[in-house]
Amino acid sequence: MGDKENNYVKIPKDHPRITSLLYRHKIIEGMKNLVVAEAGLIAHGRGECFDYILGEKTNDFAIHAINAAVAQLLLAQHPVISVNGNVAALCPEDLVILSNTVNAPLEINIFYRKKGRVNAIKKLLEEAGGKNILGTDESIMVEIEELSSNRRNVDPKGIKISDVVFIPLEDGDRTEALKKLGKTVISVDLNPLSRTAIWADITIVDNIIRTLPIMTKIALKYKNYAKEQLKKIVDEFNNKKNIQNVLDFVIKYINLQKEKAFSILYK
Amino acid sequence: MGDKENNYVKIPKDHPRITSLLYRHKIIEGMKNLVVAEAGLIAHGRGECFDYILGEKTNDFAIHAINAAVAQLLLAQHPVISVNGNVAALCPEDLVILSNTVNAPLEINIFYRKKGRVNAIKKLLEEAGGKNILGTDESIMVEIEELSSNRRNVDPKGIKISDVVFIPLEDGDRTEALKKLGKTVISVDLNPLSRTAIWADITIVDNIIRTLPIMTKIALKYKNYAKEQLKKIVDEFNNKKNIQNVLDFVIKYINLQKEKAFSILYK
Repeated sequence: MGDKENNYVKIPKDHPRITSLLYRHKIIEGMKNLVVAEAGLIAHGRGECFDYILGEKTNDFAIHAINAAVAQLLLAQHPVISVNGNVAALCPEDLVILSNTVNAPLEINIFYRKKGRVNAIKKLLEEAGGKNILGTDESIMVEIEELSSNRRNVDPKGIKISDVVFIPLEDGDRTEALKKLGKTVISVDLNPLSRTAIWADITIVDNIIRTLPIMTKIALKYKNYAKEQLKKIVDEFNNKKNIQNVLDFVIKYINLQKEKAFSILYK
Repeated sequence: MGDKENNYVKIPKDHPRITSLLYRHKIIEGMKNLVVAEAGLIAHGRGECFDYILGEKTNDFAIHAINAAVAQLLLAQHPVISVNGNVAALCPEDLVILSNTVNAPLEINIFYRKKGRVNAIKKLLEEAGGKNILGTDESIMVEIEELSSNRRNVDPKGIKISDVVFIPLEDGDRTEALKKLGKTVISVDLNPLSRTAIWADITIVDNIIRTLPIMTKIALKYKNYAKEQLKKIVDEFNNKKNIQNVLDFVIKYINLQKEKAFSILYK
Protein backbone atom coordinates (compact mmCIF):
# COMPACT_ATOMS: atom_id res chain seq x y z
CA MET A 1 0.00 0.00 0.00
CA GLY A 2 2.96 2.33 -0.61
CA ASP A 3 0.77 4.90 -2.34
CA LYS A 4 0.14 7.82 -0.02
CA GLU A 5 -2.33 9.56 -2.31
CA ASN A 6 -5.24 9.12 0.08
CA ASN A 7 -3.53 10.66 3.08
CA TYR A 8 -3.84 14.13 1.74
CA VAL A 9 -7.45 14.42 0.76
CA LYS A 10 -8.17 18.09 1.35
CA ILE A 11 -10.86 18.84 3.89
CA PRO A 12 -12.29 22.37 3.87
CA LYS A 13 -11.78 23.94 7.31
CA ASP A 14 -15.44 24.86 7.54
CA HIS A 15 -16.64 21.33 6.80
CA PRO A 16 -19.42 20.61 9.33
CA ARG A 17 -17.87 17.26 10.22
CA ILE A 18 -14.18 18.19 10.09
CA THR A 19 -13.31 16.59 13.45
CA SER A 20 -14.79 13.29 12.39
CA LEU A 21 -12.92 13.42 9.07
CA LEU A 22 -9.59 14.27 10.72
CA TYR A 23 -9.84 11.33 13.12
CA ARG A 24 -10.86 9.10 10.21
CA HIS A 25 -7.54 9.96 8.63
CA LYS A 26 -5.69 9.29 11.89
CA ILE A 27 -7.13 5.79 11.87
CA ILE A 28 -6.14 5.24 8.23
CA GLU A 29 -2.63 6.52 8.98
CA GLY A 30 -2.59 4.18 11.98
CA MET A 31 -3.26 1.25 9.70
CA LYS A 32 -0.42 2.25 7.39
CA ASN A 33 1.90 2.46 10.42
CA LEU A 34 0.85 -1.02 11.65
CA VAL A 35 -0.78 0.45 14.78
CA VAL A 36 -4.34 -0.24 13.64
CA ALA A 37 -5.61 -3.56 12.28
CA GLU A 38 -7.67 -3.56 9.08
CA ALA A 39 -10.69 -4.66 11.10
CA GLY A 40 -10.02 -1.63 13.32
CA LEU A 41 -11.04 0.64 10.44
CA ILE A 42 -14.38 -1.13 10.22
CA ALA A 43 -14.82 -0.87 13.99
CA HIS A 44 -14.10 2.85 13.73
CA GLY A 45 -16.90 3.16 11.21
CA ARG A 46 -19.35 1.49 13.59
CA GLY A 47 -18.38 4.05 16.20
CA GLU A 48 -18.81 6.95 13.79
CA CYS A 49 -22.34 5.84 13.10
CA PHE A 50 -23.35 5.86 16.76
CA ASP A 51 -21.54 9.14 17.43
CA TYR A 52 -23.63 10.71 14.69
CA ILE A 53 -26.83 9.56 16.41
CA LEU A 54 -25.53 10.96 19.73
CA GLY A 55 -25.05 14.37 18.12
CA GLU A 56 -21.23 14.05 18.14
CA LYS A 57 -21.10 15.56 21.62
CA THR A 58 -20.53 14.46 25.21
CA ASN A 59 -24.01 14.18 26.67
CA ASP A 60 -25.13 14.28 30.30
CA PHE A 61 -25.26 10.48 30.58
CA ALA A 62 -21.61 10.35 29.51
CA ILE A 63 -20.55 12.93 32.09
CA HIS A 64 -22.45 10.97 34.72
CA ALA A 65 -20.53 7.79 33.84
CA ILE A 66 -17.22 9.65 33.58
CA ASN A 67 -17.62 10.92 37.14
CA ALA A 68 -18.19 7.40 38.44
CA ALA A 69 -15.33 6.03 36.31
CA VAL A 70 -12.80 8.54 37.61
CA ALA A 71 -13.88 7.98 41.21
CA GLN A 72 -13.53 4.23 40.67
CA LEU A 73 -10.05 4.59 39.18
CA LEU A 74 -8.91 6.79 42.09
CA LEU A 75 -10.27 4.27 44.61
CA ALA A 76 -8.51 1.32 42.97
CA GLN A 77 -5.50 -0.47 44.48
CA HIS A 78 -4.17 -1.52 41.08
CA PRO A 79 -5.90 0.34 38.27
CA VAL A 80 -4.74 -0.30 34.70
CA ILE A 81 -5.59 1.18 31.31
CA SER A 82 -5.81 -1.37 28.50
CA VAL A 83 -4.72 0.05 25.13
CA ASN A 84 -5.51 -1.32 21.68
CA GLY A 85 -4.52 -0.07 18.22
CA ASN A 86 -7.49 2.20 17.62
CA VAL A 87 -7.23 4.02 20.95
CA ALA A 88 -3.49 4.47 20.52
CA ALA A 89 -3.92 5.87 17.01
CA LEU A 90 -6.68 8.26 18.03
CA CYS A 91 -5.35 9.82 21.23
CA PRO A 92 -1.92 8.70 22.46
CA GLU A 93 -1.19 11.94 24.37
CA ASP A 94 -4.49 11.91 26.24
CA LEU A 95 -3.88 8.29 27.27
CA VAL A 96 -0.49 9.18 28.74
CA ILE A 97 -1.84 12.22 30.58
CA LEU A 98 -4.75 10.27 32.10
CA SER A 99 -2.40 7.41 33.01
CA ASN A 100 -0.15 9.81 34.91
CA THR A 101 -3.04 11.62 36.56
CA VAL A 102 -4.78 8.55 38.00
CA ASN A 103 -1.57 6.51 38.47
CA ALA A 104 -2.75 3.69 36.21
CA PRO A 105 -0.17 2.11 33.89
CA LEU A 106 -0.90 1.65 30.19
CA GLU A 107 -0.96 -1.99 29.05
CA ILE A 108 -1.01 -2.85 25.35
CA ASN A 109 -3.48 -5.65 24.63
CA ILE A 110 -4.45 -6.31 21.05
CA PHE A 111 -6.46 -8.90 19.17
CA TYR A 112 -4.56 -9.02 15.89
CA ARG A 113 -0.99 -9.73 17.04
CA LYS A 114 0.54 -8.97 13.66
CA LYS A 115 4.34 -8.89 13.78
CA GLY A 116 5.55 -5.46 14.82
CA ARG A 117 2.16 -4.13 15.92
CA VAL A 118 2.92 -4.14 19.67
CA ASN A 119 6.17 -2.28 19.02
CA ALA A 120 4.47 0.22 16.73
CA ILE A 121 1.92 0.99 19.46
CA LYS A 122 4.62 1.15 22.11
CA LYS A 123 6.61 3.61 20.01
CA LEU A 124 3.54 5.80 19.49
CA LEU A 125 2.80 5.88 23.23
CA GLU A 126 6.43 6.64 24.08
CA GLU A 127 6.53 9.46 21.56
CA ALA A 128 3.48 10.83 23.38
CA GLY A 129 5.46 10.80 26.64
CA GLY A 130 4.51 7.35 27.93
CA LYS A 131 6.92 5.45 30.18
CA ASN A 132 6.98 1.84 31.43
CA ILE A 133 4.39 0.66 28.94
CA LEU A 134 3.15 -2.79 29.98
CA GLY A 135 2.19 -5.72 27.76
CA THR A 136 5.28 -5.41 25.58
CA ASP A 137 7.58 -8.10 26.93
CA GLU A 138 6.37 -11.47 25.64
CA SER A 139 8.78 -13.36 27.90
CA ILE A 140 7.08 -12.29 31.13
CA MET A 141 3.42 -12.40 30.03
CA VAL A 142 1.07 -14.71 31.91
CA GLU A 143 -2.20 -16.29 30.82
CA ILE A 144 -5.59 -15.43 32.19
CA GLU A 145 -8.46 -17.87 32.07
CA GLU A 146 -11.84 -17.29 30.49
CA LEU A 147 -10.41 -16.14 27.18
CA SER A 148 -9.42 -18.34 24.27
CA SER A 149 -7.77 -15.82 21.95
CA ASN A 150 -4.23 -14.57 22.10
CA ARG A 151 -5.47 -11.74 24.28
CA ARG A 152 -5.40 -14.09 27.23
CA ASN A 153 -1.77 -13.10 27.65
CA VAL A 154 -1.54 -10.23 30.09
CA ASP A 155 1.20 -8.45 31.96
CA PRO A 156 1.88 -9.74 35.52
CA LYS A 157 2.42 -6.13 36.62
CA GLY A 158 -0.76 -4.89 34.96
CA ILE A 159 -4.08 -6.56 34.17
CA LYS A 160 -3.10 -9.74 36.03
CA ILE A 161 -2.99 -8.05 39.43
CA SER A 162 -5.46 -5.25 38.69
CA ASP A 163 -8.70 -4.68 40.54
CA VAL A 164 -10.03 -2.00 38.17
CA VAL A 165 -9.46 -2.20 34.40
CA PHE A 166 -10.24 0.68 32.07
CA ILE A 167 -10.93 -0.77 28.59
CA PRO A 168 -11.75 1.87 25.98
CA LEU A 169 -13.11 0.47 22.67
CA GLU A 170 -13.02 -3.15 23.79
CA ASP A 171 -14.71 -6.23 22.31
CA GLY A 172 -17.42 -8.10 24.15
CA ASP A 173 -15.61 -11.41 24.67
CA ARG A 174 -12.80 -9.73 26.52
CA THR A 175 -15.05 -7.56 28.64
CA GLU A 176 -17.04 -10.61 29.68
CA ALA A 177 -13.83 -12.49 30.49
CA LEU A 178 -12.49 -9.67 32.66
CA LYS A 179 -15.81 -9.47 34.50
CA LYS A 180 -15.78 -13.22 35.12
CA LEU A 181 -12.28 -12.87 36.57
CA GLY A 182 -13.75 -10.51 39.14
CA LYS A 183 -12.32 -7.28 37.78
CA THR A 184 -14.22 -4.02 37.99
CA VAL A 185 -14.51 -2.92 34.38
CA ILE A 186 -14.85 0.61 32.99
CA SER A 187 -15.54 0.91 29.27
CA VAL A 188 -15.85 3.65 26.68
CA ASP A 189 -18.11 2.54 23.86
CA LEU A 190 -20.22 4.52 21.42
CA ASN A 191 -22.60 1.59 21.01
CA PRO A 192 -24.82 1.53 24.12
CA LEU A 193 -26.01 -1.98 23.21
CA SER A 194 -22.65 -3.65 22.61
CA ARG A 195 -21.80 -6.58 24.84
CA THR A 196 -18.99 -4.48 26.27
CA ALA A 197 -21.42 -1.71 27.18
CA ILE A 198 -23.77 -4.17 28.87
CA TRP A 199 -21.11 -6.19 30.71
CA ALA A 200 -19.06 -3.28 32.05
CA ASP A 201 -19.63 -1.90 35.54
CA ILE A 202 -19.35 1.63 34.26
CA THR A 203 -20.03 2.34 30.58
CA ILE A 204 -19.15 5.73 29.14
CA VAL A 205 -21.13 6.13 25.92
CA ASP A 206 -19.06 8.77 24.23
CA ASN A 207 -16.30 9.28 21.70
CA ILE A 208 -12.93 8.44 23.26
CA ILE A 209 -11.37 11.58 21.77
CA ARG A 210 -13.73 13.71 23.85
CA THR A 211 -13.84 11.43 26.90
CA LEU A 212 -10.17 11.26 27.88
CA PRO A 213 -9.51 14.99 28.37
CA ILE A 214 -12.69 15.28 30.45
CA MET A 215 -11.61 12.31 32.59
CA THR A 216 -8.27 13.96 33.30
CA LYS A 217 -9.93 17.24 34.21
CA ILE A 218 -12.29 15.50 36.63
CA ALA A 219 -9.47 13.37 38.06
CA LEU A 220 -7.53 16.52 38.97
CA LYS A 221 -10.58 17.71 40.90
CA TYR A 222 -11.44 14.36 42.52
CA LYS A 223 -7.87 13.85 43.74
CA ASN A 224 -8.71 16.27 46.53
CA TYR A 225 -11.83 14.33 47.54
CA ALA A 226 -11.98 12.02 50.55
CA LYS A 227 -12.36 8.30 49.91
CA GLU A 228 -15.87 8.41 51.31
CA GLN A 229 -16.89 11.06 48.81
CA LEU A 230 -15.49 9.00 45.93
CA LYS A 231 -17.23 5.86 47.19
CA LYS A 232 -20.52 7.73 47.30
CA ILE A 233 -20.11 8.79 43.65
CA VAL A 234 -19.45 5.19 42.61
CA ASP A 235 -22.29 3.77 44.71
CA GLU A 236 -24.84 6.20 43.36
CA PHE A 237 -24.05 5.28 39.78
CA ASN A 238 -26.37 2.70 38.16
CA ASN A 239 -25.00 1.46 34.84
CA LYS A 240 -28.21 -0.17 33.62
CA LYS A 241 -30.23 2.96 34.38
CA ASN A 242 -27.62 5.12 32.69
CA ILE A 243 -27.62 3.00 29.50
CA GLN A 244 -31.41 3.18 29.48
CA ASN A 245 -31.07 6.96 29.58
CA VAL A 246 -28.79 6.73 26.52
CA LEU A 247 -31.41 4.67 24.71
CA ASP A 248 -34.11 7.20 25.60
CA PHE A 249 -31.88 9.91 24.16
CA VAL A 250 -31.45 7.93 20.92
CA ILE A 251 -35.19 7.34 20.64
CA LYS A 252 -35.85 11.05 21.12
CA TYR A 253 -33.26 11.88 18.47
CA ILE A 254 -34.74 9.50 15.90
CA ASN A 255 -38.27 10.69 16.60
CA LEU A 256 -37.14 14.24 15.96
CA GLN A 257 -35.56 13.22 12.64
CA LYS A 258 -38.83 11.85 11.29
CA GLU A 259 -39.59 15.35 10.01
CA LYS A 260 -36.32 17.23 10.46
CA ALA A 261 -34.22 14.95 8.23
CA PHE A 262 -36.32 15.90 5.23
CA SER A 263 -35.80 19.64 5.67
CA ILE A 264 -32.64 19.43 3.50
CA LEU A 265 -34.90 18.78 0.51
CA TYR A 266 -36.60 22.17 0.79
CA LYS A 267 -33.56 24.41 1.15
CA MET B 1 0.87 -4.49 3.75
CA GLY B 2 2.28 -7.69 2.29
CA ASP B 3 1.51 -9.64 5.45
CA LYS B 4 -1.53 -11.82 4.88
CA GLU B 5 -1.84 -12.96 8.47
CA ASN B 6 -5.16 -11.23 9.01
CA ASN B 7 -6.88 -12.78 6.00
CA TYR B 8 -7.17 -16.13 7.62
CA VAL B 9 -8.63 -15.41 11.00
CA LYS B 10 -10.65 -18.51 11.69
CA ILE B 11 -14.35 -17.95 12.20
CA PRO B 12 -16.30 -20.80 13.82
CA LYS B 13 -19.08 -21.89 11.44
CA ASP B 14 -21.68 -21.55 14.17
CA HIS B 15 -20.70 -17.97 15.02
CA PRO B 16 -23.95 -16.03 15.35
CA ARG B 17 -22.68 -13.26 13.11
CA ILE B 18 -20.72 -15.34 10.59
CA THR B 19 -22.21 -13.64 7.51
CA SER B 20 -21.25 -10.22 8.79
CA LEU B 21 -17.71 -11.43 9.57
CA LEU B 22 -17.28 -13.05 6.16
CA TYR B 23 -18.26 -9.87 4.33
CA ARG B 24 -15.99 -7.89 6.62
CA HIS B 25 -13.14 -10.00 5.31
CA LYS B 26 -14.28 -9.49 1.70
CA ILE B 27 -13.99 -5.74 2.25
CA ILE B 28 -10.52 -6.09 3.78
CA GLU B 29 -9.44 -8.30 0.88
CA GLY B 30 -10.90 -5.69 -1.46
CA MET B 31 -8.66 -3.06 0.07
CA LYS B 32 -5.60 -5.26 -0.39
CA ASN B 33 -6.57 -5.77 -4.05
CA LEU B 34 -6.99 -1.99 -4.61
CA VAL B 35 -10.74 -2.38 -5.18
CA VAL B 36 -11.76 -0.74 -1.89
CA ALA B 37 -10.43 2.57 -0.58
CA GLU B 38 -9.23 2.77 3.02
CA ALA B 39 -12.16 5.06 3.81
CA GLY B 40 -14.38 2.34 2.34
CA LEU B 41 -13.56 0.13 5.32
CA ILE B 42 -14.78 2.82 7.69
CA ALA B 43 -17.93 3.27 5.60
CA HIS B 44 -18.51 -0.47 5.81
CA GLY B 45 -18.36 -0.23 9.58
CA ARG B 46 -21.03 2.46 9.62
CA GLY B 47 -23.23 0.14 7.58
CA GLU B 48 -22.60 -2.79 9.91
CA CYS B 49 -23.80 -0.71 12.82
CA PHE B 50 -27.12 0.12 11.20
CA ASP B 51 -27.61 -3.42 9.93
CA TYR B 52 -27.29 -4.61 13.49
CA ILE B 53 -30.08 -2.26 14.59
CA LEU B 54 -32.24 -3.51 11.69
CA GLY B 55 -31.84 -7.08 12.91
CA GLU B 56 -29.52 -8.02 10.00
CA LYS B 57 -32.53 -8.97 7.89
CA THR B 58 -34.53 -7.60 4.97
CA ASN B 59 -37.56 -6.00 6.57
CA ASP B 60 -40.96 -5.19 5.06
CA PHE B 61 -40.03 -1.57 4.40
CA ALA B 62 -37.06 -2.78 2.36
CA ILE B 63 -39.20 -5.16 0.29
CA HIS B 64 -41.65 -2.32 -0.31
CA ALA B 65 -38.84 -0.09 -1.66
CA ILE B 66 -37.31 -2.95 -3.67
CA ASN B 67 -40.61 -3.49 -5.48
CA ALA B 68 -40.79 0.18 -6.45
CA ALA B 69 -37.10 0.22 -7.41
CA VAL B 70 -37.39 -2.76 -9.73
CA ALA B 71 -40.53 -1.37 -11.36
CA GLN B 72 -38.75 1.97 -11.86
CA LEU B 73 -35.71 0.28 -13.43
CA LEU B 74 -37.91 -1.72 -15.82
CA LEU B 75 -39.79 1.43 -16.84
CA ALA B 76 -36.59 3.38 -17.55
CA GLN B 77 -35.40 4.30 -21.06
CA HIS B 78 -31.75 4.36 -20.00
CA PRO B 79 -31.25 2.77 -16.61
CA VAL B 80 -27.70 2.47 -15.27
CA ILE B 81 -26.14 0.88 -12.19
CA SER B 82 -23.35 2.93 -10.60
CA VAL B 83 -20.66 0.76 -9.02
CA ASN B 84 -18.11 1.80 -6.40
CA GLY B 85 -15.34 -0.18 -4.72
CA ASN B 86 -17.34 -1.44 -1.74
CA VAL B 87 -20.25 -2.73 -3.82
CA ALA B 88 -17.89 -4.43 -6.26
CA ALA B 89 -15.97 -6.10 -3.44
CA LEU B 90 -19.10 -7.31 -1.66
CA CYS B 91 -21.21 -8.73 -4.49
CA PRO B 92 -19.77 -8.62 -8.01
CA GLU B 93 -21.79 -11.61 -9.28
CA ASP B 94 -25.11 -10.24 -8.04
CA LEU B 95 -24.38 -6.90 -9.73
CA VAL B 96 -23.77 -8.62 -13.07
CA ILE B 97 -26.90 -10.76 -12.78
CA LEU B 98 -29.12 -7.78 -11.91
CA SER B 99 -27.52 -5.73 -14.69
CA ASN B 100 -28.38 -8.42 -17.23
CA THR B 101 -31.87 -8.95 -15.85
CA VAL B 102 -32.99 -5.31 -15.97
CA ASN B 103 -30.82 -4.37 -18.98
CA ALA B 104 -28.94 -1.67 -17.09
CA PRO B 105 -25.19 -1.37 -17.76
CA LEU B 106 -22.72 -1.23 -14.89
CA GLU B 107 -20.74 2.03 -14.67
CA ILE B 108 -17.73 2.31 -12.36
CA ASN B 109 -17.75 5.63 -10.50
CA ILE B 110 -15.43 6.03 -7.56
CA PHE B 111 -14.37 8.84 -5.24
CA TYR B 112 -10.77 7.85 -4.55
CA ARG B 113 -9.30 7.54 -8.06
CA LYS B 114 -6.12 5.84 -6.93
CA LYS B 115 -4.05 4.56 -9.82
CA GLY B 116 -5.18 1.11 -10.86
CA ARG B 117 -8.40 1.12 -8.84
CA VAL B 118 -10.77 1.42 -11.83
CA ASN B 119 -8.98 -1.44 -13.56
CA ALA B 120 -9.05 -3.57 -10.41
CA ILE B 121 -12.83 -3.08 -10.13
CA LYS B 122 -13.29 -3.71 -13.86
CA LYS B 123 -11.34 -6.95 -13.60
CA LEU B 124 -13.44 -8.08 -10.63
CA LEU B 125 -16.69 -7.39 -12.48
CA GLU B 126 -15.45 -9.14 -15.62
CA GLU B 127 -14.40 -12.18 -13.62
CA ALA B 128 -17.96 -12.21 -12.29
CA GLY B 129 -19.25 -12.36 -15.90
CA GLY B 130 -19.67 -8.63 -16.57
CA LYS B 131 -19.34 -7.31 -20.11
CA ASN B 132 -19.10 -3.78 -21.53
CA ILE B 133 -18.39 -2.20 -18.18
CA LEU B 134 -18.77 1.58 -18.48
CA GLY B 135 -16.75 4.31 -16.78
CA THR B 136 -13.42 2.70 -17.61
CA ASP B 137 -12.22 4.65 -20.65
CA GLU B 138 -10.91 8.02 -19.43
CA SER B 139 -10.59 9.34 -22.99
CA ILE B 140 -14.32 9.36 -23.66
CA MET B 141 -15.61 10.49 -20.24
CA VAL B 142 -17.67 13.69 -20.06
CA GLU B 143 -18.25 16.05 -17.16
CA ILE B 144 -21.54 16.54 -15.39
CA GLU B 145 -22.33 19.74 -13.56
CA GLU B 146 -23.29 20.05 -9.91
CA LEU B 147 -20.35 18.05 -8.63
CA SER B 148 -16.90 19.36 -7.84
CA SER B 149 -15.00 16.14 -7.18
CA ASN B 150 -13.44 13.83 -9.72
CA ARG B 151 -16.70 11.90 -9.76
CA ARG B 152 -18.12 14.53 -12.10
CA ASN B 153 -16.62 12.47 -14.93
CA VAL B 154 -19.23 10.06 -16.24
CA ASP B 155 -19.60 7.78 -19.20
CA PRO B 156 -21.44 9.28 -22.21
CA LYS B 157 -23.12 5.91 -22.75
CA GLY B 158 -24.13 5.53 -19.10
CA ILE B 159 -24.94 8.04 -16.37
CA LYS B 160 -24.73 10.98 -18.81
CA ILE B 161 -27.76 9.85 -20.84
CA SER B 162 -29.52 7.92 -18.07
CA ASP B 163 -32.99 8.71 -16.77
CA VAL B 164 -32.85 6.28 -13.83
CA VAL B 165 -29.63 5.74 -11.84
CA PHE B 166 -29.25 2.97 -9.30
CA ILE B 167 -26.61 4.02 -6.76
CA PRO B 168 -25.96 1.45 -4.03
CA LEU B 169 -23.84 2.73 -1.09
CA GLU B 170 -23.48 6.25 -2.44
CA ASP B 171 -22.37 9.44 -0.72
CA GLY B 172 -24.73 12.34 -0.17
CA ASP B 173 -23.02 14.93 -2.39
CA ARG B 174 -23.29 12.72 -5.42
CA THR B 175 -26.89 11.72 -4.78
CA GLU B 176 -27.86 15.36 -4.44
CA ALA B 177 -25.99 16.19 -7.66
CA LEU B 178 -27.72 13.46 -9.62
CA LYS B 179 -31.11 14.60 -8.32
CA LYS B 180 -30.37 18.20 -9.33
CA LEU B 181 -29.51 16.95 -12.84
CA GLY B 182 -33.04 15.59 -13.02
CA LYS B 183 -32.21 11.90 -12.70
CA THR B 184 -34.52 9.50 -10.92
CA VAL B 185 -32.34 8.04 -8.17
CA ILE B 186 -32.62 4.65 -6.47
CA SER B 187 -30.33 4.06 -3.49
CA VAL B 188 -29.45 1.21 -1.15
CA ASP B 189 -28.31 2.58 2.19
CA LEU B 190 -28.36 1.06 5.66
CA ASN B 191 -28.51 4.51 7.23
CA PRO B 192 -32.10 5.73 6.88
CA LEU B 193 -31.00 9.26 7.79
CA SER B 194 -28.05 9.65 5.41
CA ARG B 195 -28.29 12.44 2.89
CA THR B 196 -28.39 9.78 0.18
CA ALA B 197 -31.37 8.11 1.84
CA ILE B 198 -33.22 11.41 2.11
CA TRP B 199 -32.40 12.71 -1.39
CA ALA B 200 -33.13 9.52 -3.33
CA ASP B 201 -36.52 8.92 -4.97
CA ILE B 202 -36.51 5.34 -3.77
CA THR B 203 -34.38 4.36 -0.77
CA ILE B 204 -33.88 0.70 0.03
CA VAL B 205 -32.76 0.50 3.67
CA ASP B 206 -31.13 -2.90 3.63
CA ASN B 207 -27.78 -4.62 3.28
CA ILE B 208 -26.71 -4.72 -0.38
CA ILE B 209 -25.70 -8.37 -0.08
CA ARG B 210 -29.32 -9.28 0.67
CA THR B 211 -30.93 -6.67 -1.59
CA LEU B 212 -29.45 -7.55 -4.97
CA PRO B 213 -30.60 -11.19 -5.19
CA ILE B 214 -34.12 -10.13 -4.14
CA MET B 215 -34.14 -7.40 -6.79
CA THR B 216 -33.24 -9.92 -9.47
CA LYS B 217 -35.95 -12.32 -8.33
CA ILE B 218 -38.57 -9.58 -8.40
CA ALA B 219 -37.31 -8.29 -11.76
CA LEU B 220 -37.86 -11.72 -13.31
CA LYS B 221 -41.47 -11.56 -12.10
CA TYR B 222 -42.10 -7.93 -13.02
CA LYS B 223 -40.77 -8.41 -16.54
CA ASN B 224 -44.13 -9.99 -17.36
CA TYR B 225 -46.10 -7.04 -15.99
CA ALA B 226 -47.71 -4.40 -18.19
CA LYS B 227 -46.26 -0.88 -18.07
CA GLU B 228 -49.39 0.36 -16.34
CA GLN B 229 -48.95 -2.15 -13.53
CA LEU B 230 -45.33 -1.10 -13.04
CA LYS B 231 -46.29 2.58 -13.05
CA LYS B 232 -48.89 1.91 -10.39
CA ILE B 233 -46.26 0.26 -8.15
CA VAL B 234 -43.95 3.27 -8.53
CA ASP B 235 -46.73 5.82 -8.03
CA GLU B 236 -47.98 4.18 -4.88
CA PHE B 237 -44.53 4.27 -3.27
CA ASN B 238 -43.87 7.19 -0.92
CA ASN B 239 -40.19 7.41 0.03
CA LYS B 240 -40.64 9.79 2.95
CA LYS B 241 -43.38 7.66 4.45
CA ASN B 242 -41.27 4.53 3.95
CA ILE B 243 -38.22 6.05 5.69
CA GLN B 244 -40.48 7.11 8.55
CA ASN B 245 -41.55 3.48 8.82
CA VAL B 246 -37.88 2.51 9.07
CA LEU B 247 -37.39 5.01 11.88
CA ASP B 248 -40.45 3.66 13.70
CA PHE B 249 -38.94 0.19 13.40
CA VAL B 250 -35.64 1.41 14.87
CA ILE B 251 -37.42 3.14 17.77
CA LYS B 252 -39.36 -0.04 18.49
CA TYR B 253 -36.14 -2.07 18.42
CA ILE B 254 -34.32 0.24 20.82
CA ASN B 255 -37.27 0.39 23.18
CA LEU B 256 -37.28 -3.40 23.28
CA GLN B 257 -33.57 -3.46 24.08
CA LYS B 258 -34.01 -1.35 27.18
CA GLU B 259 -34.64 -4.57 29.09
CA LYS B 260 -33.69 -7.31 26.64
CA ALA B 261 -30.08 -6.21 26.18
CA PHE B 262 -29.36 -6.89 29.83
CA SER B 263 -30.58 -10.48 29.71
CA ILE B 264 -27.05 -11.63 28.72
CA LEU B 265 -25.95 -10.77 32.24
CA TYR B 266 -28.24 -13.35 33.81
CA LYS B 267 -27.44 -16.36 31.65
